[in-house]
Amino acid sequence: MNTNTQTTRLYHTALSPFCRKVRLVLAEKKIEVELVEERYWEGSPDLKRRNPAGKLPVLRYRGNLLAESQAIIEYLDEAVPAPSLMPQTPLERHEVRRLCAWFDDKFHTEVTQPILNERVWKKITRSGYPDSRVVKDGLRAVKDHIDYLSSLLETRRWLAGNTLSLADFTAAAHFSCLDYISDVDWDRSEGLRDWYATIKSRPAFRSVLADQVPGIHPAPHYAELDFG
Amino acid sequence: MNTNTQTTRLYHTALSPFCRKVRLVLAEKKIEVELVEERYWEGSPDLKRRNPAGKLPVLRYRGNLLAESQAIIEYLDEAVPAPSLMPQTPLERHEVRRLCAWFDDKFHTEVTQPILNERVWKKITRSGYPDSRVVKDGLRAVKDHIDYLSSLLETRRWLAGNTLSLADFTAAAHFSCLDYISDVDWDRSEGLRDWYATIKSRPAFRSVLADQVPGIHPAPHYAELDFG
Repeated sequence: MNTNTQTTRLYHTALSPFCRKVRLVLAEKKIEVELVEERYWEGSPDLKRRNPAGKLPVLRYRGNLLAESQAIIEYLDEAVPAPSLMPQTPLERHEVRRLCAWFDDKFHTEVTQPILNERVWKKITRSGYPDSRVVKDGLRAVKDHIDYLSSLLETRRWLAGNTLSLADFTAAAHFSCLDYISDVDWDRSEGLRDWYATIKSRPAFRSVLADQVPGIHPAPHYAELDFG
Repeated sequence: MNTNTQTTRLYHTALSPFCRKVRLVLAEKKIEVELVEERYWEGSPDLKRRNPAGKLPVLRYRGNLLAESQAIIEYLDEAVPAPSLMPQTPLERHEVRRLCAWFDDKFHTEVTQPILNERVWKKITRSGYPDSRVVKDGLRAVKDHIDYLSSLLETRRWLAGNTLSLADFTAAAHFSCLDYISDVDWDRSEGLRDWYATIKSRPAFRSVLADQVPGIHPAPHYAELDFG
């Protein structure tokens, strides 16, 4: 998948956790990127050309088009080794990938997807009103996730171990989308709140915290670094 | 996640593409494994202890419990380097991971999940009769996938490039579940049929081809090596 120009460009949409995890890793690696907001639900003939799966994010980097958020961030960690966001041993690396999958699959299915769909996407795409039952189920599910992550952080500095990794940025990408619409009960876990405050204060987070989605106002504490 | 014994054991269920991809990679790496069939839909208190996500497969290997099929197979490729199932450059490795995600996300959502749910899981769990409309949509979707994969194979020996990789085993895991119930139109693409015949004839495939799911008979050609 070659293109002609060498500009780094991310085709994305603001409140997608999958797009955000790529933005965060790009920023942590200090890779400058031009962001192109794609209203993918309106159907773009170019999106399928750039990614046959028809999904965002798509990253144009060093003349190649890259798709699938996990595949992209693993690529970035290999292609731009410093700072490293993967530990060294196979077992530690498994734990990073297990937690990335935890968020992109389980957390997304139970929490991010239903809540964002009801509270954000239905509004943006004008496809109906939020179903409060679905939102309530999502908010109930997030509690179990907070408790689980909180238990991990009792013995670890970061989510997958003692070093900052792709798992933290994946988790932060999901939480930041929920936090934009104020759907995280940070009081439930001091450990998780501290973890989020720490990662949120990294320079890599600035672009994400500056997001303004038309028609959807961010929660007052969304961009504050000493929330909670 | 440490356990006491060192036996390699896979907690799995036969017609799950996620369990099968792990079985295939274990076999390709010549790692002997004890298979434990888990009727996860009946709810096992042990499953959540082994994997807090409550999902299969779970692999016990070298005293550790490993979860999430993609994280497991990447771990196996790093922990047991020969034969290698990942290419060397970051760009080639991205292509492997992009295609694994293609199958585990897009192909699964559009094809494997709806078809297996209607034709297998409803029968096994006695939760109703197949909805022929859902099956029909899945069979329609599989045609587009066959055409896309076929176009990749026009210029590649294997799905992600010229070497056998995790992408081929992930794809074969999904196709083999469909093939068990005879839902692949192999006549649609000679290239894809040849690819499947080649991977199916590897010794690593033997265990999967010997599967017999109670109440669900395999298609007559399922275990034949010169089908098509």
